[in-house]
Amino acid sequence: MSVPTAAADQSLCAPLPVLGRDVTVPLVTGGEVAYAALDYAASAPALQRVWDDVAAYAPYYGSVHRGAGYLSQLSTDLFENARRTVAEFLGCREGDQVVFTRSTTDSLNLLAAALPAGCQVFVFETEHHASLLPWRHADVTYLDAPSSPAQAVRTLERALAARAPHGPALVCVTGASNVTGELWPVRELAAAAHAHGARIVLDAAQLAPHHPVSVADLDVDWVAFSGHKLYAPFGAGVLAGRADWLAVAEPYLAGGGASRKVSRRDDGGVHVEWHDSAARHEAGSPNVIGAYAIASACKALTEAGFETLVARERYLIGKVREGLAAVPEVRVLSLFGDDAARVGVLSFVVDGWNSSHFAAALSAEYGIGVRDGLFCAHPLVRTLLGSDPQSQGECGAPEAAPGEKSLNAIRVSFGAGTPDEHVERFVTAVTELVRDGARWNYRTEEGRCVPDTSTAAA
Amino acid sequence: MSVPTAAADQSLCAPLPVLGRDVTVPLVTGGEVAYAALDYAASAPALQRVWDDVAAYAPYYGSVHRGAGYLSQLSTDLFENARRTVAEFLGCREGDQVVFTRSTTDSLNLLAAALPAGCQVFVFETEHHASLLPWRHADVTYLDAPSSPAQAVRTLERALAARAPHGPALVCVTGASNVTGELWPVRELAAAAHAHGARIVLDAAQLAPHHPVSVADLDVDWVAFSGHKLYAPFGAGVLAGRADWLAVAEPYLAGGGASRKVSRRDDGGVHVEWHDSAARHEAGSPNVIGAYAIASACKALTEAGFETLVARERYLIGKVREGLAAVPEVRVLSLFGDDAARVGVLSFVVDGWNSSHFAAALSAEYGIGVRDGLFCAHPLVRTLLGSDPQSQGECGAPEAAPGEKSLNAIRVSFGAGTPDEHVERFVTAVTELVRDGARWNYRTEEGRCVPDTSTAAA
Repeated sequence: MSVPTAAADQSLCAPLPVLGRDVTVPLVTGGEVAYAALDYAASAPALQRVWDDVAAYAPYYGSVHRGAGYLSQLSTDLFENARRTVAEFLGCREGDQVVFTRSTTDSLNLLAAALPAGCQVFVFETEHHASLLPWRHADVTYLDAPSSPAQAVRTLERALAARAPHGPALVCVTGASNVTGELWPVRELAAAAHAHGARIVLDAAQLAPHHPVSVADLDVDWVAFSGHKLYAPFGAGVLAGRADWLAVAEPYLAGGGASRKVSRRDDGGVHVEWHDSAARHEAGSPNVIGAYAIASACKALTEAGFETLVARERYLIGKVREGLAAVPEVRVLSLFGDDAARVGVLSFVVDGWNSSHFAAALSAEYGIGVRDGLFCAHPLVRTLLGSDPQSQGECGAPEAAPGEKSLNAIRVSFGAGTPDEHVERFVTAVTELVRDGARWNYRTEEGRCVPDTSTAAA
Repeated sequence: MSVPTAAADQSLCAPLPVLGRDVTVPLVTGGEVAYAALDYAASAPALQRVWDDVAAYAPYYGSVHRGAGYLSQLSTDLFENARRTVAEFLGCREGDQVVFTRSTTDSLNLLAAALPAGCQVFVFETEHHASLLPWRHADVTYLDAPSSPAQAVRTLERALAARAPHGPALVCVTGASNVTGELWPVRELAAAAHAHGARIVLDAAQLAPHHPVSVADLDVDWVAFSGHKLYAPFGAGVLAGRADWLAVAEPYLAGGGASRKVSRRDDGGVHVEWHDSAARHEAGSPNVIGAYAIASACKALTEAGFETLVARERYLIGKVREGLAAVPEVRVLSLFGDDAARVGVLSFVVDGWNSSHFAAALSAEYGIGVRDGLFCAHPLVRTLLGSDPQSQGECGAPEAAPGEKSLNAIRVSFGAGTPDEHVERFVTAVTELVRDGARWNYRTEEGRCVPDTSTAAA
């Protein structure tokens, strides 16, 4: 494996400034250290630029849409401009709609509620629960985990070919796995879907923060992502794409903003005319700050040069993979094999270690924040581990029997704000923990694995 | 009507500091003026305290729930503590659940999705669409507008007495009207509901920012409110109350966080075990900043002394009502009459004026932000105006024929951050506009009534 080094590649950009880069946290072994946030795949820190934009706007915050005041009109313009910025960021087609939701989960639940009658849904079992579970009122076909991108396409093609033709169908697929970070062959899956008369929605929660996404180029029908993974953690997300299904679907939420006209009927009931624009699915006061923050992040990533961010992230991924490869006890989880392209998300298990214990030691002894567990993708993690997983093992016994199958995994993830030092420290920490063991005892307390501060490890 | 004056009542507290209090806006007549935000009923400015708390936390933002890092655990604690703060603020009972949603609209849609099978719903036609419309899959009885609080109780009692007994039923009622600001007899309606075996949910969107709310004292089963009206505009809202219906209902959103365990079934399907705590209805990464902002606002209002805020608001309401009473062309909209208790929300029409035109002139000539339209409460506004309302009149013709019925109304609303000067300027502006007419011409442009900058009024 050939890994570029910073010295060899002077073109690598610096990390983008993010909030929290100066925050220090206490170590159980004494002293403080700058916090290494390596759980970007769950929630990324806000870009400094996003925070500055939000802070500059906050005093001008006003009610949107029907307010007559200056700040209301400014806020309304800002909100509607955010829609256009996001559409541009995503390479949307003319006529595509951008709906502001609260998260990817919400976006996919919205689309699930907007499926035409009789719609079949095709989804790989390897998806995050946000993509796996929303289709609860549809006829869902769960596709087995593929072992390569090509097999993913073949699996989908076979399933679509077997379906009853002519009815509506939707394929839901991730752009990058939230567990392995591996890229999925979105363009090819989209082509397969369309060839069989199906539509496709791209879960870009893990892709959009790490990689340019173009709805038009990928030829997907919809794309969903979350602000909190895109350096804009203010409670908003996006569903963008084809307007037709959305325009005729029952409004996602019933309330003001979505309704154009409401009147009593002669029979005592209520008659509602709903909007057919994005507002149809955005009832209630819009989250202006959340939408504005997302737009700010889109601009910041574009202006920084997304390609240079991708290059930098590839360099960091190389460092992590190289470091982990030197520790034989570490097994990196992968569906598609070593050569698979991936974003800065990587899960692994350590022989002889309970993952919760390992993650707790990374935090308490090195100030590194990762995640342990099943990453809201239980069937995938089960496949990868080859065992029946549990969301958290007991970490009172510091080391599980060597050779035992892991119950869950550890995930490290990073992005545009990650300095080299964080991944270097991570590699050092993994190496030392595996070689020397934890320097402290740990126990489970209220479901968390925490240092046992009553005793130091021998 | 006796109005306390600031001089006479030295006990009145100062307004709470809010963002935007130093923002100036341009006047069409020249110069700039400090913006008077008088559209609190739509979205209130953030309390300075809320902003400061959010700004202090933002660098410590981390992934919640399954993150092993220090900031993840800090963020998780902060999120769960926010739940407790809100429960305390609302006077919740032991065992009540606090679910973080995105808004009141979202909270009531969640409850609507959690109704037991066959549940009947009773709702007054005078409600905001957020309370009126979510019950679309239930058997809804719409109750006619009452002319007094006592009649509201009698109307509800009569309707409940006529229902088929023994089945589940829910009453949904506002605490304070978003159009008239009038207080509804929540305690009495709750007693009536319970006497007839029904439950009750309080829409406190307009009440909670202005008045202490106690779930236990009012004996309501649930309460819903929005952060953006409670000085915490970060995309979060609350549904709080009885856990039983929520614990067994289908999860509001399907996804991670709501699911405890997911596995493939032998038949190829997927088996899901859902949480039965609040997490059941909070799938996706929680909006930690939004929840924390609401908790901060709850603390700020409590610590400021809610009773002194109520006294100050009552004083401002008195000033506005006294000022408007001196202008005979102004008609204040009311269901319950002049003596009704109200919060700082008041709608009116002006003889001979199109409301959009009047609101535009308040903004352009006085820097005052109010709202015009139907306030997402169409049936109520229709009842109050006695005419078929339209959301916005044509404002090209600056003055409608005197005596013609208004098509829509103007709403002024304020709260804990409003200084005396804002309501004084508002009263002066109304008086001058009615007496002297607008100093500028206005025209409709892209649905907004705006100053016609090509010509000044004669």
